[in-house]
Amino acid sequence: MRRIKLTISYDGTDFFGWQVQPGLPTIQGILEAIFEEIEKKPVHVAGSGRTDAGVHALAQVAAVSIENPIPLYNLRKAVNRLLPQSIRVTCAEEVHAEFHPRFHAKRKTYEYRIFRGEVCSPFERRYVHHHPYPLDEDVIVRLAPAFEGEHDFSAFAAADERDTDGRSKTRMIYGSRVERTPDRITYRVTGSGFLKHMVRNIVGTLLEAGKGNVDAAGIEAFLRSGGPPKAGPTAPASGLFLINVEY
Amino acid sequence: MRRIKLTISYDGTDFFGWQVQPGLPTIQGILEAIFEEIEKKPVHVAGSGRTDAGVHALAQVAAVSIENPIPLYNLRKAVNRLLPQSIRVTCAEEVHAEFHPRFHAKRKTYEYRIFRGEVCSPFERRYVHHHPYPLDEDVIVRLAPAFEGEHDFSAFAAADERDTDGRSKTRMIYGSRVERTPDRITYRVTGSGFLKHMVRNIVGTLLEAGKGNVDAAGIEAFLRSGGPPKAGPTAPASGLFLINVEY
Repeated sequence: MRRIKLTISYDGTDFFGWQVQPGLPTIQGILEAIFEEIEKKPVHVAGSGRTDAGVHALAQVAAVSIENPIPLYNLRKAVNRLLPQSIRVTCAEEVHAEFHPRFHAKRKTYEYRIFRGEVCSPFERRYVHHHPYPLDEDVIVRLAPAFEGEHDFSAFAAADERDTDGRSKTRMIYGSRVERTPDRITYRVTGSGFLKHMVRNIVGTLLEAGKGNVDAAGIEAFLRSGGPPKAGPTAPASGLFLINVEY
Repeated sequence: MRRIKLTISYDGTDFFGWQVQPGLPTIQGILEAIFEEIEKKPVHVAGSGRTDAGVHALAQVAAVSIENPIPLYNLRKAVNRLLPQSIRVTCAEEVHAEFHPRFHAKRKTYEYRIFRGEVCSPFERRYVHHHPYPLDEDVIVRLAPAFEGEHDFSAFAAADERDTDGRSKTRMIYGSRVERTPDRITYRVTGSGFLKHMVRNIVGTLLEAGKGNVDAAGIEAFLRSGGPPKAGPTAPASGLFLINVEY
């Protein structure tokens, strides 16, 4: 049995996220159908984690176990020929049999892109959150690093994950920074792992801070165990990219 | 009556081109429906020229005559609110009553984008022609300027335009150049006007030259009145952008 690590880029606009859902187009579902065709039997495609409907990836990581002896170069070519153009395998590598893209991931980086200009280019509309309304951007830049360090992110989890029993909601954030250019705010966050909706809820909270509805003390309170149960709203999926997974 | 000049950007992927076609989504058709709603009677939206199905525009120019006294800023905003996000009015200006975007256009510039890398990014696939196959790019760079000057472009017209009677197929080309970067070929052409499919047929001919199927003498022959009737194949629409119209 060979274990193959795949690096995958996708435009998430037209998919119902990463995870298999019967009857709906998902990245994992499409990949599993293609590997079943190549391997002539069902193949599980393990990912580094789910991405939600509409979220993009520059470099999602997945792995498959196959017996087919096809050379890596030809495998990548064959898979790309069968995939829709909105999903591309950018790299295929032979790895040790135990490699698991989720359990072995050490750090993940996400980027969230906000377009601030009044008219959003038709060529970018699928890949940004268009927010042309007033914001104190200085506040957003200043508060973004507040998420760095080890915190209980319960207040930033999706509602259906917030109340799950014993599982820890503590995550280590290595970097949480905002960069500004004249028409754009770009938020980049690197962490040990992320809860469902966590990045989009952090961005939603930073936007609330930019509107004057949340301050530094408010963010600190959200990051405290037993603090307020629900931080800012979930920012739209279109602006979010999974850009790197490190092992 | 006010005459309004509109500058319009669109992602042509999901449209059947500029020109109104009953029952099909076209840029002109959608704009006319919106201006009819604003003006409460049918409004003709005149364009600088047609773009084919799938062709994009960074700055198409159109004009409308309306009586509604709405300020320009609000007009642009209202139209953009009614348009799909794949079409944006980037500028609305008051012009003299006789302004006609087609008859008064002095020069137009198109850009054609070819992606040469093996794996095309999902985020660019709609906006390039992906051509990863062998090409002598030096030949393409060297031959592109052969189209500059005044020529009979009959051999580069669409089949249904090639045989039309008396209408002149002579056009003045001010610039026809190719730029290369590691994974890309970008062709830019500025001219007094263009026949249907002309830019895509020039690109198709340059690609044939890159494959060794056409040389400088062949291109010269195509550009001579009474020369061979049909130049290279029509390159795909996805790579073509109307980028500027000058008055």
